Amino acid sequence: MTIHSFHPPVRTLMGPGPSDVHPRILGALARPTIGHLDPLFVGMMDEMKTLLQYAFKTKNELTLSVSAPGSAGMETAFVNLVEPGDTVIVCQNGVFGGRMKENVERCGATPVMVQDDWGMPVDPQKVEDALKANPAAKLVAFVHAETSTGAQSDAKTISHLAHAHGALVIADAVTSLGGSELEVDGWGIDAIYSGSQKCLSCTPGLSPVSFSEHAVERIKSRKTKVQSWFLDLNLVMSYWGGGTKRAYHHTAPINALYGLHEALVILQEEGLENSWKRHYNLHLALKAGFEAMGLALIVPEAARLPQLNTIAIPEGVDEALVRSILLNRYNLEIGAGLGALAGKVWRVGLMGHSATPKNVLFCLAAMEAVLTELNAPIQCGVAVQAAQKIIVEKGY
Amino acid sequence: MTIHSFHPPVRTLMGPGPSDVHPRILGALARPTIGHLDPLFVGMMDEMKTLLQYAFKTKNELTLSVSAPGSAGMETAFVNLVEPGDTVIVCQNGVFGGRMKENVERCGATPVMVQDDWGMPVDPQKVEDALKANPAAKLVAFVHAETSTGAQSDAKTISHLAHAHGALVIADAVTSLGGSELEVDGWGIDAIYSGSQKCLSCTPGLSPVSFSEHAVERIKSRKTKVQSWFLDLNLVMSYWGGGTKRAYHHTAPINALYGLHEALVILQEEGLENSWKRHYNLHLALKAGFEAMGLALIVPEAARLPQLNTIAIPEGVDEALVRSILLNRYNLEIGAGLGALAGKVWRVGLMGHSATPKNVLFCLAAMEAVLTELNAPIQCGVAVQAAQKIIVEKGY
Repeated sequence: MTIHSFHPPVRTLMGPGPSDVHPRILGALARPTIGHLDPLFVGMMDEMKTLLQYAFKTKNELTLSVSAPGSAGMETAFVNLVEPGDTVIVCQNGVFGGRMKENVERCGATPVMVQDDWGMPVDPQKVEDALKANPAAKLVAFVHAETSTGAQSDAKTISHLAHAHGALVIADAVTSLGGSELEVDGWGIDAIYSGSQKCLSCTPGLSPVSFSEHAVERIKSRKTKVQSWFLDLNLVMSYWGGGTKRAYHHTAPINALYGLHEALVILQEEGLENSWKRHYNLHLALKAGFEAMGLALIVPEAARLPQLNTIAIPEGVDEALVRSILLNRYNLEIGAGLGALAGKVWRVGLMGHSATPKNVLFCLAAMEAVLTELNAPIQCGVAVQAAQKIIVEKGY
Repeated sequence: MTIHSFHPPVRTLMGPGPSDVHPRILGALARPTIGHLDPLFVGMMDEMKTLLQYAFKTKNELTLSVSAPGSAGMETAFVNLVEPGDTVIVCQNGVFGGRMKENVERCGATPVMVQDDWGMPVDPQKVEDALKANPAAKLVAFVHAETSTGAQSDAKTISHLAHAHGALVIADAVTSLGGSELEVDGWGIDAIYSGSQKCLSCTPGLSPVSFSEHAVERIKSRKTKVQSWFLDLNLVMSYWGGGTKRAYHHTAPINALYGLHEALVILQEEGLENSWKRHYNLHLALKAGFEAMGLALIVPEAARLPQLNTIAIPEGVDEALVRSILLNRYNLEIGAGLGALAGKVWRVGLMGHSATPKNVLFCLAAMEAVLTELNAPIQCGVAVQAAQKIIVEKGY
């Protein structure tokens, strides 16, 4: 069988990630490859660190991009900070808290689970109760922005509670970084990881991470070796540590890093706070459109992520058929539900370069068209106007 | 500080990898991003499996690309096949055998080391002795093509010895895949990993791997969970397994995979055996040029990798200065020595798209020019002719 070059269609990506990639970032990916030890590449890596510190709002020295997707960023946090026999408090209110539990167990440690309903934020009171009941707990892990549900939790309060009980915190910011308020230093987050393909609008495959001084101390004073050679920050630090003498660890994904660098340059040009505001304002417009149509968002307003809108599927609608028509006729991707929410919700992303007035109108128009075609019980002819009102109000 | 877009220079990459990336592959990286669960992306992944099976010469069902660099491919092989308490025979004749030892230890197993000099191939007699002395050994791990020295070992003989003693084999083919003879099924290799950035001429960041049925049986019958969630093949299998229903594991690095797909399409167009032959013929030309100049290759001829030429540095030459002039004036990257060979050798790669008659002549001319400038004891004015003779002889 002869296989030919693959030419993907041009989609509009409004699922839970990847988001639409800015043409400048696609262009950066195609720039000439240079060596991973080339002085010019090393210079770019120093800039990357500065740009990531800006995005995370941190001065943490150990701020870098793990050379693998967000799941590997999660694993980096756990394998470096957890030792066999440790107790770790893990908050679960969606898929990714469950993956944290898996990570803790595979490190030979004991997870103490704090459970909240899917679609709800983590309840700080339950975290405090767990800390009181488990004084030996060395870590609290939680998901800041649950990609599976669209709920955001109060990272600042959870971090303060953990510190008050002598524990460090690990936060999953895969979906929040660049898209909604996040202050690593201001909130006291000790270890944080994200993904390149959400609100940074880069291609998937890289995981920005940052570790506080307290976290670094703990990593340096481990009694056991980190179980992963590839993700061992003691080794990675000597490569990313700066200076002219970098020890070879692994071959960095050069062109993917060109893309992330460009994504972060774009973020810096827009301004971090402006990016947060854009995500929020366009979420208000999208939400107004959905609500006018009669579609309900499942997450309580106070905990709603602007960049990920989780919508209850109207009764009697074949949700997979809707997504399939949107994809095949309109080249529009929206996300299905995951785990406990599979079949019950759609996840509509407004992340990074996907968060534009154009996409808000297009998504509402396409969903109205397809739902009407399938005789779903929705209100017709009002969604676009409702969104347009807010778009104009907000000055776009 | 304002940071601007990064625009790398156009280098010629003749170090130990990354190699020059074909413009078709750079172009593929910049194609529109689609979702990792998009049916068209899933179709591309099915093609990728077929293309990788072709490159590895295998029918192994479990053939895929790990979403991270070669070091993570290595770790995938070890964390899936090794359990705590196991005994693993590890052959070391360079840097990467040492990294294998680290992997075995971090899996809680005991490595039994078989040592050979750097620059020499693994001695099969020593492997047999180790197998006899350690009947409990469940695995033999070795590096097929040592990127740190340029030596290739007899993968077929080592695999047969291991099987005769009831052990499986793990082979590192980071530098060999696509560049020199490699037959996964024909030689009986149970687990193999490679890198995208060597003889496949793709950008760094992905690791093609393949596992035999025996290896899969062992993975499925483990007594303990794989310590890495990200690299657990039991989970990855349900995503890459084929069919229309793929369980979400992690977000695949979409655009990087476009690049690898294109690289493999190019390999298929050239023909695997033709690619091996091109690497070998152009190595002969490069070698003739170096030898005419008076530069000696350190690896014995029978074990020499055509795609990685390790040259002894002439006495009194500041090797770092040579590399620096080559890089800054001629945009030519060659590699330094690593580990025990640091300061003693240069590593000149002829990998993938870097293996062209043009690069052979250019590299010889540039090295002659710089070495002459620095008064190195070399023969002038003969290298280009020596190489040209072979290039013409071989019909390029």
